[in-house]
Amino acid sequence: MTPARDPQDRPLAALVAPDILELLEESPGAIAAEVEELHPADLADVAELMSRAQVAQFLAALPAARAADVLEYLDEELRTAVLEEMPTAQASALVSQMTPDDRTDVLEEIDEDVAEEIVSGLPADARAETERLRQFDPDTAGGLMTTEFVSVSSAASVDDTLEAVRALARSGRKEATYAIYAADEHGRLAGVLSLRELLGAAPGARIADVAWTEVVSVGPDSHRQDVAQLTANYDLIAVPVVSESGHLMGVVTVDDVIDVIQEEQTEDIQRLGGMEALDEPYTSIGFWQMIRKRGGWLTVLFVGQFFTASAMQSFGSELQKALVLSLFIPLIVSSGGNSGSQATSMIIRAMALGEVTLKDWWRVALRELPTGLTLGALLGVLGFGRIVVWQRLDLWDYGEHYVLLAMTVGLAVVGVVAFGSLIGSMLPFLLRRLGLDPASASAPFVATLVDVTGLIIYFMVAVLLLSGTLL
Amino acid sequence: MTPARDPQDRPLAALVAPDILELLEESPGAIAAEVEELHPADLADVAELMSRAQVAQFLAALPAARAADVLEYLDEELRTAVLEEMPTAQASALVSQMTPDDRTDVLEEIDEDVAEEIVSGLPADARAETERLRQFDPDTAGGLMTTEFVSVSSAASVDDTLEAVRALARSGRKEATYAIYAADEHGRLAGVLSLRELLGAAPGARIADVAWTEVVSVGPDSHRQDVAQLTANYDLIAVPVVSESGHLMGVVTVDDVIDVIQEEQTEDIQRLGGMEALDEPYTSIGFWQMIRKRGGWLTVLFVGQFFTASAMQSFGSELQKALVLSLFIPLIVSSGGNSGSQATSMIIRAMALGEVTLKDWWRVALRELPTGLTLGALLGVLGFGRIVVWQRLDLWDYGEHYVLLAMTVGLAVVGVVAFGSLIGSMLPFLLRRLGLDPASASAPFVATLVDVTGLIIYFMVAVLLLSGTLL
Repeated sequence: MTPARDPQDRPLAALVAPDILELLEESPGAIAAEVEELHPADLADVAELMSRAQVAQFLAALPAARAADVLEYLDEELRTAVLEEMPTAQASALVSQMTPDDRTDVLEEIDEDVAEEIVSGLPADARAETERLRQFDPDTAGGLMTTEFVSVSSAASVDDTLEAVRALARSGRKEATYAIYAADEHGRLAGVLSLRELLGAAPGARIADVAWTEVVSVGPDSHRQDVAQLTANYDLIAVPVVSESGHLMGVVTVDDVIDVIQEEQTEDIQRLGGMEALDEPYTSIGFWQMIRKRGGWLTVLFVGQFFTASAMQSFGSELQKALVLSLFIPLIVSSGGNSGSQATSMIIRAMALGEVTLKDWWRVALRELPTGLTLGALLGVLGFGRIVVWQRLDLWDYGEHYVLLAMTVGLAVVGVVAFGSLIGSMLPFLLRRLGLDPASASAPFVATLVDVTGLIIYFMVAVLLLSGTLL
Repeated sequence: MTPARDPQDRPLAALVAPDILELLEESPGAIAAEVEELHPADLADVAELMSRAQVAQFLAALPAARAADVLEYLDEELRTAVLEEMPTAQASALVSQMTPDDRTDVLEEIDEDVAEEIVSGLPADARAETERLRQFDPDTAGGLMTTEFVSVSSAASVDDTLEAVRALARSGRKEATYAIYAADEHGRLAGVLSLRELLGAAPGARIADVAWTEVVSVGPDSHRQDVAQLTANYDLIAVPVVSESGHLMGVVTVDDVIDVIQEEQTEDIQRLGGMEALDEPYTSIGFWQMIRKRGGWLTVLFVGQFFTASAMQSFGSELQKALVLSLFIPLIVSSGGNSGSQATSMIIRAMALGEVTLKDWWRVALRELPTGLTLGALLGVLGFGRIVVWQRLDLWDYGEHYVLLAMTVGLAVVGVVAFGSLIGSMLPFLLRRLGLDPASASAPFVATLVDVTGLIIYFMVAVLLLSGTLL
């Protein structure tokens, strides 16, 4: 999925759109030549300024391969609407021009029945290919791969291979050509070389002489995030997808990997914010869907917060005796939530990048505890100072035991911040251990956990320090 | 920067490391052949299992170009240490083999004086190139670009161009060859075609006939995030960097763009968690640096939370009369913080993807208000129910006016959640308007803003509903 773009911000699209719209009215036949030099992404921006009927007309006015390119860059919602509304034959013709992986993605988005009809209108080989690819989970390497790639025998000569690549390039088909794969006599993946290496190879050499035999590859069920991580670590432009028997099934190209990285990032940030991943642009998601995505977690967190009321109730007699304690409750519990939120975000990201793994939990805990205590001491001193200064400046009267009260607040902050850092850093490990997404350890989730324990820490410190004076 | 990897998780590295270490002791001359087929990223993993002295030995045992590749994939901290400790001549020889962009990055990381020495040991042309590139801000297109690319005259023939590319590939130099740029008679960038398109072009054609004339490009001062967004939107494998006069200065390749996307994401997530971006892997940052990165925002937020104490103080007489109100303070303020955190994360991400821009603030506000009210109503009913149920089941005695109290809590939650959603969604717009990074609107920042206002909303509702009964 290409991230949504705002056509208004695209000066090029806004510039050429009026001309194209005029041609669409008057001489659609002239459109193809007019827009020949424009990138399909720009044409998609132009299309987003049109009505749906106009988009269908516009696509019909372009050569089929070009129209398919534009379709690929179109905003998902618009693309779905256009494909569902156009005659099935036109839709099939368009979709048949897309690469197998993009075709599968597009069909994934639209109404199941319409997709079936479009697929049944495809040429036999494209239909079989599409049906095969649709079986893979879209979040796996199999769901991302294209099946059009260049594979030759290890025994082939460099010159023949280069000729084959040139023939493919001339045919206008959209194979992933930047990596050339070599197969052994059993057809298993045995080597890889980049197109650049092929061009640089000595004439007369065999592929086996120049290919790299240690091939970085994934299985069809590998999660897309692992594919992305491999691409980033090895600076790949294509990741081969290999079956259990060692045969090359397809290739995930770097442009799709970039989309994966961005989508995963969007999910992580939304989860971290305490909601379900939207899976759709903010601008196109429906009202009730939005409520559902946000309401679920809000409800869970709210019910979790019931425990704060229970905790407060259990310290009811202390509160009654020293109402002044209640004044600092938001200050204290929030300091724990904040430090917890920091620790959680950091660890989730470090996990996503592979900087820390499950077995590092102990090392992280040993690091977060002193960090939390130090940060807590910093804030604790501030909290202590806040009360003493307000009292001395006569801004508020906390009573004769104000120093004890200030110590209570200060010490409670140390405990709460240290505890928050620890919980916040450990929660992602716990979630991963349970097989859940560590990014579900949202800032609000951590804050809720820490709020309840923070109250208990606060009142326990109060009982300890203030018994005999305020309590 | 390649994200840090954990060598222990790399079975390949762990597998070959013992052999390589043994060879390093006994016959370093045999190492190059032994590891010939391994990807430099894997060799870097192996190096990370060695002592620093061994790493220098290992690099010396590899052909210079290969050693430079390994150096590029090495963990930043280790690379810095190794380069700083090895003889300057060896370091210069190694670094001279890197592409100009990687060379500049590596020099950026190490001690300024050592970097100067290494640069002065480079061959004259590499030295001039490096000094020129080091002038660019690393966060801009100029700081990311490599200056080794393929540029030909528009008038050149396809066949000559292909021959030139093959000669380059044979020379073993690491030009960015997947896009070929065409220059007009004044040397200005006039077209682009992919290597695939070059291979597929009809023999005898001129570059001008087959190149795309609408070239997507950036200026040297473009922010790296814009380079990344262009790459994602147009599915590019290289982004040309063009001077104001229209001349091609360099090329940013897709592997560097992936690193940029990951680094920007790390920064966004850490800021969203309420801290400064670490700019270093979690595992390698020092204790006091960590305290500084986290302590700053924690302090600001803590001081911000002082206002909650002030707000509570100003409602001191109400609290005195109806202590029961204090029981629900954490519950109510946290519900606002949570809804605000959701809205902020969502809008920050939508902004980063270009889904919403500054001028959409009004549209977003009009959307968040009803969303917030609906979510607030959902939680408000739960809050109301919580009090009534606890009372009816004799779990706690909230007094004879418990229904009024339940209504107060319920209504306050509606107001606080709606307000939280609104503030949370508007804050990123405000920050961007002020020229700041919208991602600074962290979840804890929003929570703090909402905590203070949430308390005021709560007590105002209480005064409204409970005057004459509890108050």
